[in-house]
Amino acid sequence: MTRRMKLTVAYDGTRYSGWQLQKNAVTVEQMLNRAIESLTGEKMRVTGASRTDAGVHSLGNTAVFDTVSRIPAGKFKFALNCHLPEDIRVLESEEVSPDFHPRKCSSIKTYEYRIWNSKIENPMQRLYAAFEYMPLDVGRMREAAAYLVGEHDFQSFASAGNQTESTVREIYSLEVLEKRHFLPDACDIVIRVRGNGFLYHMVRIIAGTLIEVGSGRRPPGQVKEILEARDRQMAGRTAPARGLTLVGIQYGKGTEQDEELNF
Amino acid sequence: MTRRMKLTVAYDGTRYSGWQLQKNAVTVEQMLNRAIESLTGEKMRVTGASRTDAGVHSLGNTAVFDTVSRIPAGKFKFALNCHLPEDIRVLESEEVSPDFHPRKCSSIKTYEYRIWNSKIENPMQRLYAAFEYMPLDVGRMREAAAYLVGEHDFQSFASAGNQTESTVREIYSLEVLEKRHFLPDACDIVIRVRGNGFLYHMVRIIAGTLIEVGSGRRPPGQVKEILEARDRQMAGRTAPARGLTLVGIQYGKGTEQDEELNF
Repeated sequence: MTRRMKLTVAYDGTRYSGWQLQKNAVTVEQMLNRAIESLTGEKMRVTGASRTDAGVHSLGNTAVFDTVSRIPAGKFKFALNCHLPEDIRVLESEEVSPDFHPRKCSSIKTYEYRIWNSKIENPMQRLYAAFEYMPLDVGRMREAAAYLVGEHDFQSFASAGNQTESTVREIYSLEVLEKRHFLPDACDIVIRVRGNGFLYHMVRIIAGTLIEVGSGRRPPGQVKEILEARDRQMAGRTAPARGLTLVGIQYGKGTEQDEELNF
Repeated sequence: MTRRMKLTVAYDGTRYSGWQLQKNAVTVEQMLNRAIESLTGEKMRVTGASRTDAGVHSLGNTAVFDTVSRIPAGKFKFALNCHLPEDIRVLESEEVSPDFHPRKCSSIKTYEYRIWNSKIENPMQRLYAAFEYMPLDVGRMREAAAYLVGEHDFQSFASAGNQTESTVREIYSLEVLEKRHFLPDACDIVIRVRGNGFLYHMVRIIAGTLIEVGSGRRPPGQVKEILEARDRQMAGRTAPARGLTLVGIQYGKGTEQDEELNF
């Protein structure tokens, strides 16, 4: 009997050329496919929810595969972890209905973009946060972020490689959190965004734009104009991959399907 | 004219065989000595405040050296960082009086010991936190921690290699902080300790003992008996190095000297 398995997958993206299988590169998907083959003998490709870029991290990406193995669903996580490198871990494994699709079923995704804001880089955050030398004004960043919440056409915040038909997405919340460090003039800033889907590079372009607002290079109100322009060239730079973590994906009703793919 | 420089040094200890210079191993001190030689042409050894073990991290160790170079004190940090690998950063550089000694002058040291408490390891914390599978009861850990606060003979919490004459130290505070994770049954636990000095492996043995209390293997009150026994065999295991970070060192009056070395 074939069962569909859903995995919650965490990884440190530092060593990987992103999620998706490709030639001459080591990817997270490749490691998962191999681990499943080692465990069950079944050759297959998992289907991922978010095809994260090279260097992007995850605490809760979703991967789905079909199997005829009799391993109990809840045991898959422990068994697969024995076949995975230590920078990839399956946190949850469960059986889902055969029509569950990690990209087509509607979901809420949460991303965090982390910034180490100080005059000097922090060696302990160099793999998981972007470094910004210019002091960032979090109040300005929050003012700018408010324009992005809600349903908008985010075409200005999508890189050229975006492959979805519509560029309309809804952002449910976009917080800018600040934790002052004990060091003088140093703080951790986290941009936390929740939405029903994100275009190619969208979170990193939002982060790059908010950084430019926070450092005074753009006024907060300009974000409204950038949205309306529907032109990638208007928005800020794409912030570095290492600062981005896919925190988690929540699925609503498993069979309710979106009309199009998330990126 | 010779000036004494004090550096505040952060590092990711993962790649290093600890702080102190040794043969056939790469150490943080070695990297600093080389960076200073590259910059000023002066061959020397820096004097460190805390000789952290292999794998231990720092956000604020102190290193001191004497130089005849004319580089302004505040510029040393930027100049040295150009000669250091990215997992070591000088955060502050300042001139201090010629009698300032990073181990002999009295100071308050703050350490954090981080634990990822969950059924499955977290790839994003594998380098900076210990992993504990058994659920930890933070209330029990706090109860046990209370016995350690104050001035005590910490001989039971020192490894055999401890070289100081007296094993009496004062712990000013010992907090156990918990942050629940969005994942079920997962949390970050941080043991934060401040004191006037720590014996060899002392923080890691305290952490190991508190983990055993938190998981139910020892009653909290046993910590009092362990202290009184002055016997290393009574305390818990030495928790792994990767969970430990020297957060910072505060110096009081620069010329006030302790009678003995910190470890």
